[in-house]
Amino acid sequence: MTRQQRDTLDALLRSAPSDHNPEPEAERLAFAQALTRPAPEGVATRRTVLGGRPALELRPSGAGRRGLLLYLHGGGYVVGSPDTHAGLVGELARRAGTPAVSLDYRLAPEHPFPAPVDDGLAAYRELLAGGMDPGELVVAGDSAGGGAVVALLLAAREAGLPQPAAAAVLSPWVDLTLSGASMRTKEDADPIFTAQDLRAYADHYLGDRDRAHPWASPVFADLTGLPPLLVQVGSNEVLLDDAVRLAGRAGADEVDVTLEVWPGVPHVFQHHYGRLDDADAALDRVAAFLTEKAAARPAVAR
Amino acid sequence: MTRQQRDTLDALLRSAPSDHNPEPEAERLAFAQALTRPAPEGVATRRTVLGGRPALELRPSGAGRRGLLLYLHGGGYVVGSPDTHAGLVGELARRAGTPAVSLDYRLAPEHPFPAPVDDGLAAYRELLAGGMDPGELVVAGDSAGGGAVVALLLAAREAGLPQPAAAAVLSPWVDLTLSGASMRTKEDADPIFTAQDLRAYADHYLGDRDRAHPWASPVFADLTGLPPLLVQVGSNEVLLDDAVRLAGRAGADEVDVTLEVWPGVPHVFQHHYGRLDDADAALDRVAAFLTEKAAARPAVAR
Repeated sequence: MTRQQRDTLDALLRSAPSDHNPEPEAERLAFAQALTRPAPEGVATRRTVLGGRPALELRPSGAGRRGLLLYLHGGGYVVGSPDTHAGLVGELARRAGTPAVSLDYRLAPEHPFPAPVDDGLAAYRELLAGGMDPGELVVAGDSAGGGAVVALLLAAREAGLPQPAAAAVLSPWVDLTLSGASMRTKEDADPIFTAQDLRAYADHYLGDRDRAHPWASPVFADLTGLPPLLVQVGSNEVLLDDAVRLAGRAGADEVDVTLEVWPGVPHVFQHHYGRLDDADAALDRVAAFLTEKAAARPAVAR
Repeated sequence: MTRQQRDTLDALLRSAPSDHNPEPEAERLAFAQALTRPAPEGVATRRTVLGGRPALELRPSGAGRRGLLLYLHGGGYVVGSPDTHAGLVGELARRAGTPAVSLDYRLAPEHPFPAPVDDGLAAYRELLAGGMDPGELVVAGDSAGGGAVVALLLAAREAGLPQPAAAAVLSPWVDLTLSGASMRTKEDADPIFTAQDLRAYADHYLGDRDRAHPWASPVFADLTGLPPLLVQVGSNEVLLDDAVRLAGRAGADEVDVTLEVWPGVPHVFQHHYGRLDDADAALDRVAAFLTEKAAARPAVAR
């Protein structure tokens, strides 16, 4: 059954128009039409503002007052929004039993690097300033949002802020120099991206800035001091080696890191919960990881 | 507390005599004296024979009749035995609620490559021939035994045998060419091994045979078709990159693989259960992984 689900999804993705639109606004619209799923039943949404940016709060019924998931959506730093990811983030919040806040960080090319990292840090800082215990705060993101999560953790470290209890990244894009071997070896297996697609996003985001900057390509950064980290990736991704190298780098820097490679599934396969068993199983694992690590971390006296 | 446990263990390991004895028999004795822990209470042991080799059966009280863990111990293919690993394997069996059989495979230099792989395959084949459902069989090993486990899976695939339900490897030694970057970058952090120590073992095991052979260095092998794989490693290991690259290779070959890097702990830290919390937590994870995957795998009609 699961094999059939994987094949169906692969065929569906391959049948989608593959030409990325060079106009960011048009591409944002197409991305939203292709990807958006609403927050699940039982998860209430509310528009809010965090760190000076719009944000979407997602609160599962029965969630307690403590604990929060700060989420950074994917979309190559160019497309996507809390609305496109309301389903994915709502599912995570529901499974973890924790409210989430999904940040509408600024997008390139209008707002290039490091605007998303600055916005993420401002949001994180406001949560801490509001009295939230970092030991009850977890962060997560997918694709470019996964890269932004790691950059946010590095920025928080540089700013002398405490780290959150844990972080989870789904198919993180953490090497904007595109130097992973899977850029080539997985070109045929990946139904969504080629290196050329990713290069176009990187052009928008970085222009002529250094593509190996630690906040753009944290796979080259010193990751010492980061909190427990879960990395999930599909085997059918040109970004497979971004995930593998991030885990290797984090482990070498003494971060408590878990890497899961899910065979036969594409980039951010977790979007396909409810129609791909692997997606549901993976989301359950993320939720269990985040709640376990948040529970294990002693609350910090403030 | 855990940090203190890690530091104490590191100091203890560094205080141990570091000169590996060039005489295998003397080194076997020293290894046994340093490492041996008895099977835990409630785990009955019995000498047996499997695939023509002596073996130690470890049966936790209350374990059912179905399911079996086949274990290959570590020791650089030169030292170690089911007796030195009775504690570690007994703990795994107890936590998984599954009987285990730990194989006394032949050792180098008296029996060089591929004697351990041949012995492992003979044992595996005899289990299947005896009517054991591969969907109820799991395999595990540490260090060189972890490498032998992967080699056994490759040998079983080549022989046309079905794969077991899952495999777990602890600090696996899977690159006998010693080409991982951590051979250098973790030299100071590793309280147990240097590349020179490992080269001496590889000399005993392989002599002038090809050190990149898939059964000696499965990090270079095509791992397609292997069962779900859990890889655990400490961050204080020259063998860290063996684990990271094995996971990367397995994932690229569409194996369902999980890599866990445990910070601040040494090679096969799981030996230190009962005095290092990380060891107990890691063993619980291995046991949960193996039982979950064995339960998920549909029984094969025979």
